[in-house]
Amino acid sequence: MANVIALLTDFGLKDPYVGQMKGTLMRHAPDSPLVDICHEVEPFSTVQAGFFLQASSPHFPRGTVFVAVVDPGVGTPRRIVCLDAFGRLFLAPDNGLLGLVLAACAHAPTGKYARAFDLTPRQRGEAVPGCSATFHGRDLFAPLAARLSQGEPPESLGSEIPLDSLARPAWSEPLPQADGVGGTVLHVDRFGNTVLNLAVEPYLDQMRQWAGKKGELALEAGSRCVVRLATTYEDIPMGEVGLLAGSQGFLELAMRMDSAAALLQLDEGDAVALHRG
Amino acid sequence: MANVIALLTDFGLKDPYVGQMKGTLMRHAPDSPLVDICHEVEPFSTVQAGFFLQASSPHFPRGTVFVAVVDPGVGTPRRIVCLDAFGRLFLAPDNGLLGLVLAACAHAPTGKYARAFDLTPRQRGEAVPGCSATFHGRDLFAPLAARLSQGEPPESLGSEIPLDSLARPAWSEPLPQADGVGGTVLHVDRFGNTVLNLAVEPYLDQMRQWAGKKGELALEAGSRCVVRLATTYEDIPMGEVGLLAGSQGFLELAMRMDSAAALLQLDEGDAVALHRG
Amino acid sequence: MANVIALLTDFGLKDPYVGQMKGTLMRHAPDSPLVDICHEVEPFSTVQAGFFLQASSPHFPRGTVFVAVVDPGVGTPRRIVCLDAFGRLFLAPDNGLLGLVLAACAHAPTGKYARAFDLTPRQRGEAVPGCSATFHGRDLFAPLAARLSQGEPPESLGSEIPLDSLARPAWSEPLPQADGVGGTVLHVDRFGNTVLNLAVEPYLDQMRQWAGKKGELALEAGSRCVVRLATTYEDIPMGEVGLLAGSQGFLELAMRMDSAAALLQLDEGDAVALHRG
Repeated sequence: MANVIALLTDFGLKDPYVGQMKGTLMRHAPDSPLVDICHEVEPFSTVQAGFFLQASSPHFPRGTVFVAVVDPGVGTPRRIVCLDAFGRLFLAPDNGLLGLVLAACAHAPTGKYARAFDLTPRQRGEAVPGCSATFHGRDLFAPLAARLSQGEPPESLGSEIPLDSLARPAWSEPLPQADGVGGTVLHVDRFGNTVLNLAVEPYLDQMRQWAGKKGELALEAGSRCVVRLATTYEDIPMGEVGLLAGSQGFLELAMRMDSAAALLQLDEGDAVALHRG
Repeated sequence: MANVIALLTDFGLKDPYVGQMKGTLMRHAPDSPLVDICHEVEPFSTVQAGFFLQASSPHFPRGTVFVAVVDPGVGTPRRIVCLDAFGRLFLAPDNGLLGLVLAACAHAPTGKYARAFDLTPRQRGEAVPGCSATFHGRDLFAPLAARLSQGEPPESLGSEIPLDSLARPAWSEPLPQADGVGGTVLHVDRFGNTVLNLAVEPYLDQMRQWAGKKGELALEAGSRCVVRLATTYEDIPMGEVGLLAGSQGFLELAMRMDSAAALLQLDEGDAVALHRG
Repeated sequence: MANVIALLTDFGLKDPYVGQMKGTLMRHAPDSPLVDICHEVEPFSTVQAGFFLQASSPHFPRGTVFVAVVDPGVGTPRRIVCLDAFGRLFLAPDNGLLGLVLAACAHAPTGKYARAFDLTPRQRGEAVPGCSATFHGRDLFAPLAARLSQGEPPESLGSEIPLDSLARPAWSEPLPQADGVGGTVLHVDRFGNTVLNLAVEPYLDQMRQWAGKKGELALEAGSRCVVRLATTYEDIPMGEVGLLAGSQGFLELAMRMDSAAALLQLDEGDAVALHRG
């Protein structure tokens, strides 16, 4: 049994760090296929990494072990946790990176089977033989991911912990408001499309209801403006802002041939609100 | 049976899009080896992608399935086509990306066995279950490439179409002229070497004949100048422009320790002509 | 038998060159797993490549074939060599790229079993069928690496040569001085941490002895200053320079939350010296 191992880091590709993680994975799990999600996450951005992880994981085979290392707290006593959800395993520092996967668990009927485990080595990192103080991706995460991919159950590598003990940053779930919802910008792509933390399931239906026959919603983002619920970019009238279900599983603000992020002056982490039109 | 799948896109490496394509390929074809040709094609440049594809494909194993997604027309009713040529399969939008492979078919004796297929899903993209409107690389191309790599013949996934119905952009074949040939710049590499759409086979012999004993040809590229037929960069006198068979299977204009593209003010897509010296 | 092939080049990821090397490897060794160490080595920097190679190789499985192509001398009669050391094979141009691996052989008890081979094709590159004059990574190195990964012994592909005939650049070994040692900067990472050519084994013990109870050493790097021997970045007082064993197997100069390279005005290739405090 050798499951896919999918890697997501902020290590970049100019250094040999990703290569050293892969060498270590190959030493411990020679027959587990390795695949990259992305290594160009903005340094230390758990928001972007969390979004990339939740947007990508449903497209990978069941059994995939995701190892996500964006870890500003390396060297501090933050936990290393493993989430078993949707038939896949998510290994990451307990710093909020798993927030959107946890939010998905709360909304999907199959999400109720999710379980969490603390896989932090008993000794502090420095005390694990051969473990560097600064490169836990290679020295702690990779050996754990390798063992998980070979079929060792997470409970044999650590102890189960309450699901609600995992870090859930504010951006992982929208906030209900009177006749509306408050959201956070997760990502601005290279076209200026602005991804919000409103998962298509279940928020698209809610938006349709609020938009009503006119198909319009009120957006608060600094100032207030009208956005049109759209199905494709072509549906958005030129110069107006649309809200649509993008390819990444979340609702996004978009313009036709223009940058919604630039017009609305929005960036990763910014707060917005959507209300009945 | 699990053939290699080789990926070529303009998705870049800062987003998780290539990773999501690979996840999808692994779900549908778990044992097909995946390999990257390049994902940093200039956005929407079918010229550069077409060149990378034809320059690279002969170096891959027979049976390889190439999936090339540079697709400015995503969401429009452009066809998804599969070319079966040289013992390999080329899956791409029908937008000219296969132009240089088609040109090679016309010149090589084995090229006459090439066949083309229309694999566009019957329904429009949006109607295919789970298919996004904007990410056909992941939602349409990847599942098709996976099935082809597992040995499903293209005729079982669509219908055969005439080879000459595929898009053949102007840059895919040079134009004969009186005592000369008109060509197009396919690519300028980081050294300023300027690759022309003149395949080494059959154009090197023609150039040798025209260059004659003096080894010189006349180049028209805005103004007119003399170029020297060379075998290696070291053969080119300093300050002069040479024409030689590069490692990518096409003739290129080059200078020794200098940029031919800068001297001649040439860029991708520009027209040139070569004449008897 | 199919061993891992690990690739290290300065080809970058904007061109299809790495893809063409991999296609060639897959043609010749279909079942050897391929893995990237890095392809963004600074063009022609054998120092950086040599460091990446020695820092990474211990993390890969025994039997791995490393193919390292940073080759400013392509087309000149430089040798292609294979070093058999530490249960791994290192294929590279004989231009100093293997210098740090050779230095490690001199220090490790198991290093004494190292052997070297000349695998330069008998004919000059241009004469090998299908070999380009400029792309030996694809046309010469890849086929050789493929055969080595399939279990062909290096002696069957060339002839053994004396280990001390391999190029050993000045930067591959520190120079003993009176009560001190002269070193060279191998790499400055993105945080300004400055890696020296002093391998943790054996130089950390020597540094500890020189640092004595005060834990201080004298550094000469243009001007003279005091550096503190540290275990982690947190041990270094703000504003001071520390010397510590990084995660890459070499001693590095570092500051807490600041750039040691900027303060000391050090860059790759610069000379420094460390003395009893």
